[in-house]
Amino acid sequence: MTLTFDTVLIANRGEVALRIARACKVLGLASVGLYAEGDDAQRHLALVDRAICIGPAAPGKSYLDKERVLRAARLTGAQAIHPGYGFLSENAAFAQAVAEAGLTLIGPPAAIIRAMGDKIEARRQMMAAGVPCLPGTEGALPEDMAQAHALCEAVGYPLIVKASGGGGGRGMRVVNSPAELDSAIQTARQEAVHAFANGDLYAERFLTTPRHIEIQVLADQMGHALWLSDRDCSVQRRHQKLVEEAPAHGISRAAVAELGQHCVAACQRMGYVGAGTFEFLYEDGRFYFIEMNTRLQVEHPVTEMVTGIDIVAEQIRVAGGLPLSISQDQITLDGHSIECRINAEDPQKFIPSPGKITRWRPPGGPGVRVESHLYEGYTIPPSYDSLIAKLVVHGATRADAIARMKAALGEMEIGGVLTTIPLHQRLMDESAFKSADISVHYLEKLLSRDDGGSNGQ
Amino acid sequence: MTLTFDTVLIANRGEVALRIARACKVLGLASVGLYAEGDDAQRHLALVDRAICIGPAAPGKSYLDKERVLRAARLTGAQAIHPGYGFLSENAAFAQAVAEAGLTLIGPPAAIIRAMGDKIEARRQMMAAGVPCLPGTEGALPEDMAQAHALCEAVGYPLIVKASGGGGGRGMRVVNSPAELDSAIQTARQEAVHAFANGDLYAERFLTTPRHIEIQVLADQMGHALWLSDRDCSVQRRHQKLVEEAPAHGISRAAVAELGQHCVAACQRMGYVGAGTFEFLYEDGRFYFIEMNTRLQVEHPVTEMVTGIDIVAEQIRVAGGLPLSISQDQITLDGHSIECRINAEDPQKFIPSPGKITRWRPPGGPGVRVESHLYEGYTIPPSYDSLIAKLVVHGATRADAIARMKAALGEMEIGGVLTTIPLHQRLMDESAFKSADISVHYLEKLLSRDDGGSNGQ
Repeated sequence: MTLTFDTVLIANRGEVALRIARACKVLGLASVGLYAEGDDAQRHLALVDRAICIGPAAPGKSYLDKERVLRAARLTGAQAIHPGYGFLSENAAFAQAVAEAGLTLIGPPAAIIRAMGDKIEARRQMMAAGVPCLPGTEGALPEDMAQAHALCEAVGYPLIVKASGGGGGRGMRVVNSPAELDSAIQTARQEAVHAFANGDLYAERFLTTPRHIEIQVLADQMGHALWLSDRDCSVQRRHQKLVEEAPAHGISRAAVAELGQHCVAACQRMGYVGAGTFEFLYEDGRFYFIEMNTRLQVEHPVTEMVTGIDIVAEQIRVAGGLPLSISQDQITLDGHSIECRINAEDPQKFIPSPGKITRWRPPGGPGVRVESHLYEGYTIPPSYDSLIAKLVVHGATRADAIARMKAALGEMEIGGVLTTIPLHQRLMDESAFKSADISVHYLEKLLSRDDGGSNGQ
Repeated sequence: MTLTFDTVLIANRGEVALRIARACKVLGLASVGLYAEGDDAQRHLALVDRAICIGPAAPGKSYLDKERVLRAARLTGAQAIHPGYGFLSENAAFAQAVAEAGLTLIGPPAAIIRAMGDKIEARRQMMAAGVPCLPGTEGALPEDMAQAHALCEAVGYPLIVKASGGGGGRGMRVVNSPAELDSAIQTARQEAVHAFANGDLYAERFLTTPRHIEIQVLADQMGHALWLSDRDCSVQRRHQKLVEEAPAHGISRAAVAELGQHCVAACQRMGYVGAGTFEFLYEDGRFYFIEMNTRLQVEHPVTEMVTGIDIVAEQIRVAGGLPLSISQDQITLDGHSIECRINAEDPQKFIPSPGKITRWRPPGGPGVRVESHLYEGYTIPPSYDSLIAKLVVHGATRADAIARMKAALGEMEIGGVLTTIPLHQRLMDESAFKSADISVHYLEKLLSRDDGGSNGQ
């Protein structure tokens, strides 16, 4: 069986562009790389069959410009487009334009991207499919504040007001009591209109110390869907994940499997195609849906490490019309995997640290995988995401994986820029991390304790 | 439980020294690196807790000098010595000297190294343990040629005369008929006396198109032994392996498991400790023991990739008195793994190509593992083995592993020296290799066909 396309345009940059270029090579597909001006030194551009400049360094005029990306596909004869993560990967208008141009998006249909991007609609679909959701309002909060108060009373306090078009923490307000509701709705709505051009808000119960647990799914065009593994991504700072693991430690496997089946049911109900992730909060033994990401996730490698399944290859295969190459009963979890995101950032102040890489010694050996577009002499441009490498390890147990991560972090040498390596080294020694006794607020509390300590001295 | 030592001297160099240094880090052990003059730029010397120069570049005065290695252990306080492969790794006198110095060799007892180094004795022990051997003579061939003829007649022609102290092809002669026996014995004996200071010879049936299949074993000091996987190492040139795989393609799993159990029985019978490899020829559905290597094997990573077991960590653990961390029934084979040995050699003439590495871009991504001590700017010294990297891949099937190896070889860039990468790229496309329809003579025939072709044109 062959795919419906033979050339893939990689509409992204950095480590994920390299990940996709490698998958194309393994599948025997031709690939095209695109880049913005001044961003032509990335590793994947040496591996693709053709590379094309699509515009100025500013992402809005290059990587985020739908028309330029489509033009690059037309000019190079690519019949399929892999959007990676970020940039245009969850842009329903782009997905629709790709389809209208007669090309294949390596991702779900535009209608599904749009539906899952609308948090109120996504929540509605999840409830209908039996996916557990937080107690919350149905539909958008009314403008009438008396009605809004009554609905929020039914949800219960503390609650969180969220933008339907939102994500990444914008348009969100925690509301501890009815007295705080009016101003919370007002400021959240202003932020939502500004950021997403959509002032619709909804309210959900606010959990105080939840973990972030997510489920990786894959689905083909024949209606087969399956879930691969759960991941724990509770180590976050400002809603940005820093450490991810598979599977989630200390959660009943039967409960996770039941959750996975609900996610599969939701995929089949909506006609999902490709790779996707259902994100949940987990507290007191229960899962609560927060959103679905209709794209490849940064942290997909930890799932690959414990299942042995090449998620990007499966994504490409199903987009090209092939059935999934595995079935649910063939999926087993082997050991434990951890990923540390290595960002070019000051690890204390979290400000980007672009610059030239003067030394690049990635770690290696058994159970160690590095995903990075870097090499010695490469210059990290200032215009883009600060993620420069993902360090992924596998061990027989979580303790083995932590020991291997510590060794790998100690071996890794990156010169010329500041990185998050010291922060990860510290985390791997923290007793709360080692016992997986952490919520999504863990890292920020740890860091604010530092600030308190240093301010007080 | 803790080990009986906390500091390991790594008595080797290159990629295997790095492999051992990494294992020590993961296990939380201190490590000491040693190096010859001018060989201090190796990657592992940056990872060990202490590095010590032990002598001049010539291996006989450094890496192969028992006294200097022991002195390095004494000077640095290392209580255990990992000999890697090659150098002193199968030297019974060294093993004995280590024990007499009150130190721990990470390997089996000296008596076992000595017994397995004596091919006649090894063969005797294997037959006693039920390990299948080639039809052959018992004990050494007598000086009396009439008696030798009678014994060889019983073995049957064609046969091969081998040196009891031998290995690596020296002191070996193929004998097609009784008429060739006298001169074969004479020249083999001369070579054996010269190379091994031991003129003892024995004769075994000669197989014309065998495959090289081997079994990896592990054993602890409590008498537990187990086998991990089989490997196919048929792609050889002048008895040097170039490509290794696990498991062996197209051989009954039941037959391999039965062979594995015989190897385990042999280990238990001799009181084996550590990692070891039983090497076999395989022809017409039957296995025939050729030798046992009482050390870590270059190609151990392919077994690690399909079993998930860290063989070097297990080696160190059992040497330190711990039991094996797995049992036979926990071992399952997952997918297929291939290793290509990347040598700094002219791939046509197979002559070493030392020099400075001007470019080093190892491949990566899912299922790809690189074991190498190289980095950009490193200079490969001329005095040692030409192995500069092992490229190891894993795939769900053998075809997947080959596709991944092709992609990884295409991605790998090594500048400044010639390497075997082009030969491996060619092999991955050869139909005989792809169908695993190869004997130990395959590669030499392929290469001689080239010579014939170019000479004839």
